[in-house]
Amino acid sequence: MKIYEYLIKKIQDTGTRHVFGIQGDYVLNFYEKLCKSPLTVINTCDEQGAGFAADAYARITGFGVVCVTYGVGGLKLANTTAQAFAELSPVLVISGAPGISERKGNPLLHHKVRSFETQINVFREMTSVQAVLDDPKTAASEIDRVINAIHRTKRPGYIELPRDMVQAEINESHNTVEKKELYIDKTETNKALQKVLSMIDKAKNPIIIAGVETHRFGMQDLLLKLIEHSGISFVTGVLSKSVFSENHPQFLGVYAGAMTPDNIREKVEGSDCVIAIGPLITDISTGIFTHNIDHKNAIVLMQDKLFIEGDIYSGIDMRNLIKQMADTIPEKKLPEKEIKRHMLDPFIPEKNKEVTMERFISCLNTFLNDDITIIAEPGDPLFASLDLEVHAKNGFLSCSYYASLGFSVPASVGVELADPNKRPIVLVGDGSFQMTGMEISVAARYGLSPIVIVLNNGGYGTFRPMVDGEFNDILEWRYAEVVKVIGSGKGFKVSNEEELVSALIKAKNNNTAPTIIDVKIGKYDCSKRLRSLTDKLKKSVK
Amino acid sequence: MKIYEYLIKKIQDTGTRHVFGIQGDYVLNFYEKLCKSPLTVINTCDEQGAGFAADAYARITGFGVVCVTYGVGGLKLANTTAQAFAELSPVLVISGAPGISERKGNPLLHHKVRSFETQINVFREMTSVQAVLDDPKTAASEIDRVINAIHRTKRPGYIELPRDMVQAEINESHNTVEKKELYIDKTETNKALQKVLSMIDKAKNPIIIAGVETHRFGMQDLLLKLIEHSGISFVTGVLSKSVFSENHPQFLGVYAGAMTPDNIREKVEGSDCVIAIGPLITDISTGIFTHNIDHKNAIVLMQDKLFIEGDIYSGIDMRNLIKQMADTIPEKKLPEKEIKRHMLDPFIPEKNKEVTMERFISCLNTFLNDDITIIAEPGDPLFASLDLEVHAKNGFLSCSYYASLGFSVPASVGVELADPNKRPIVLVGDGSFQMTGMEISVAARYGLSPIVIVLNNGGYGTFRPMVDGEFNDILEWRYAEVVKVIGSGKGFKVSNEEELVSALIKAKNNNTAPTIIDVKIGKYDCSKRLRSLTDKLKKSVK
Repeated sequence: MKIYEYLIKKIQDTGTRHVFGIQGDYVLNFYEKLCKSPLTVINTCDEQGAGFAADAYARITGFGVVCVTYGVGGLKLANTTAQAFAELSPVLVISGAPGISERKGNPLLHHKVRSFETQINVFREMTSVQAVLDDPKTAASEIDRVINAIHRTKRPGYIELPRDMVQAEINESHNTVEKKELYIDKTETNKALQKVLSMIDKAKNPIIIAGVETHRFGMQDLLLKLIEHSGISFVTGVLSKSVFSENHPQFLGVYAGAMTPDNIREKVEGSDCVIAIGPLITDISTGIFTHNIDHKNAIVLMQDKLFIEGDIYSGIDMRNLIKQMADTIPEKKLPEKEIKRHMLDPFIPEKNKEVTMERFISCLNTFLNDDITIIAEPGDPLFASLDLEVHAKNGFLSCSYYASLGFSVPASVGVELADPNKRPIVLVGDGSFQMTGMEISVAARYGLSPIVIVLNNGGYGTFRPMVDGEFNDILEWRYAEVVKVIGSGKGFKVSNEEELVSALIKAKNNNTAPTIIDVKIGKYDCSKRLRSLTDKLKKSVK
Repeated sequence: MKIYEYLIKKIQDTGTRHVFGIQGDYVLNFYEKLCKSPLTVINTCDEQGAGFAADAYARITGFGVVCVTYGVGGLKLANTTAQAFAELSPVLVISGAPGISERKGNPLLHHKVRSFETQINVFREMTSVQAVLDDPKTAASEIDRVINAIHRTKRPGYIELPRDMVQAEINESHNTVEKKELYIDKTETNKALQKVLSMIDKAKNPIIIAGVETHRFGMQDLLLKLIEHSGISFVTGVLSKSVFSENHPQFLGVYAGAMTPDNIREKVEGSDCVIAIGPLITDISTGIFTHNIDHKNAIVLMQDKLFIEGDIYSGIDMRNLIKQMADTIPEKKLPEKEIKRHMLDPFIPEKNKEVTMERFISCLNTFLNDDITIIAEPGDPLFASLDLEVHAKNGFLSCSYYASLGFSVPASVGVELADPNKRPIVLVGDGSFQMTGMEISVAARYGLSPIVIVLNNGGYGTFRPMVDGEFNDILEWRYAEVVKVIGSGKGFKVSNEEELVSALIKAKNNNTAPTIIDVKIGKYDCSKRLRSLTDKLKKSVK
């Protein structure tokens, strides 16, 4: 068996069916093999688009692959891979590279920066595991090591494939690397369980915050069992929105410190026992650290640690702990009937009324169903949509912590390929659309049908409440005309509520090609959530 | 004086008038100051575009600045900065960053990857100098140190500006950092000079290869004096094309190993004394190491080293050596009259004849003048255009060594702002245009008038002669329609030679807005130079 065969086989073993990327001469021979394999290559417009698409794909399927050439391809993935690292997205980056035999004498080969190690050094900063397949004897075990680590850490890994190694014969009898698992301390886990149970038992109004790790580490079903068995109400965080269907009767809303509607905020911060399961505690998730939760009332369970009453328990088996909690907590913690979840206002379009962010969200809300995945770009597209009532589990996707602009349009390609039964609706600002929006071309090429809604407020509206200036302005594009450039799909320009409803209906019916809806929003209009966030943020900006 | 004032002043002192970039909350307060300063901020569509524009700007003016936010901005510049490093382009990267006071306790602030050092660690790989302005007492000397090193090395430098330091008062009495200079050994330089002179004296048919370092280190005038005084004919390399006007009577053409027209190749490789001044000896510049020059006949002078007859002289003062050669070489080495430079065929358009790369170049050649700068994207746009007769000194720009696709359209923005008297003509493949071509929007916004010629052969034509497959195909865009999206400029679709001439004439007259010309080329058509290069390259690809 050859290196390329082993690598392709191992990718297939993860369940992955697609590889995103752009070729180049250092990876051409591997691309030729990829194209002849059962894997499907998806060419994006720019490598950046491939990185974002693979990230989104990985968030849906549990594994994503992006494959590019050396230097000019690999380094274009620095930002997208950093995002996957920061937000626990299991992406395998494969980069072609100069052959080992070509590197002798350290010549200046094209795409080289400082040395042949430059690229791997960069990826050390943003992947959990790296390997250069420079030796056929160890190549198979190196591939195993990288893929196992990606699965274990849910963070990206890097494989560099020198082009003269693609067809090298591997060592068939390689010792399969033993899968490293996280260290688990059973005694500590049991001690922690007793403490947790006793605290919950005493609690009068406990609440669960379902965090993003429950999704990444595949514990949604377990946690749901705990929630339903105990009857405890739950909220999610910004990054974990839609970790369960938001139609669930025990769901209250998305909590993010001061950036939270009052009724949800009171419920969380007034609780005498906040049980946070797998949260990523960031500035964004806490509304710039405005979460007002007394740590004496908090249980914070993370992948391998538990924080409770000021103590830290290490070596915790998160999965087992949730399971035992579900089995042990008595069925007495029923949801409080008197506190309702935060609901959006009903939406009836008004003639000739300009669209605002808040009204746009109320309108979009009426279009949601089980088959739609919302992809919200960082900024107000994200903050405004936190109150959308997402029907489907995992039906809302955003990069709300690392928050790279340019994510959402290429992400829609990854989402629709990962699950063809889902229809992506992209909410993207006009500034972000100008970064990577042309990746909608990829959707057109491969017969996908995302609905891309450009929330067009004439620039970087998220920054305007902090510091405004002409650097927040952009050239106004005719976004709906983009479909003419790519020769496929439908474009709509919307300037009032009736047109918005009409465009959304037509978009829904245009289900074999992309749709772009250019929604004109006031330059200074924004959601309440954004306003409360920027009130905090602007203090750091001055 | 505050840190931001000192930094802006020092940028102005370099002669720079423009700063490219996109803001973000970690750099918002510095952006506000920048916009109120005499510097002009140029917002691109994506940070990648800003990086390429600043690189091109630096190649024209000798200093470029790109300014972005932390993480999501900075890491998008990894590839563009790597290119600037590899090809000696003096770019200053300024990144905003979380405030020093915000970093206490190592919180998860948005845009953070692994640690607060991730980004600077990445930039260590692709810049010659780095500084975090975390201390007002040293900030001024750190700024000096970075800017001096950029000037000295002609490679990029990195400044990270925590947002709570922007308004901090600097130490006024800071000791200005002494400018480090390269070590120079006068004795060695003199010894080297004698050796060089004696070798040239014995030579019957010497030839000069003018390399890229003569441009980067400002030695073009000195070298021209040597050329004209000695009467020795010269060629340039791929990266140094147009280092002198190609109308110069002693200019023969561009030499690149086997990728060279026969008459030039014979002249160079048949010389008994090849004097290479400041070359970058790469796989591309040598036609994949097919240069057939006997090192016994070669003098290779680089920034601080001289290679001659197998010896290396270090600590060489390149500038002084060229000067002394010009002063000392007797005026006897007249150009050989019998060998003419390589000339393009004359061009008379034929009716209904499809455009080929070779004929396209012959046609474009008739449109060149002193005021045009050609920007050639890597791949066949570059290789085919090596035989263009560029009138203006520095009138041809390409990233022919690092060779990142996506460079040329954003580069045109940098070129036209660097010298408003120059009209950029961009030669870009359709694959590359899909990466960053929408940056033409920036030209429209700021009233620039590049002529962007999309050489549309249905995909990545440069790779087809090596390995072909559907990964080389792309979705066909209607490139001329892009002007409708950006709402400015003119677009033309060209499918035969007459239409090409007509579109070029109209483009030339459209001098206040961008032009896009979509030139249909056969899927497998390419230039002779590319064919000879890919014949070599494909051996490494199998």
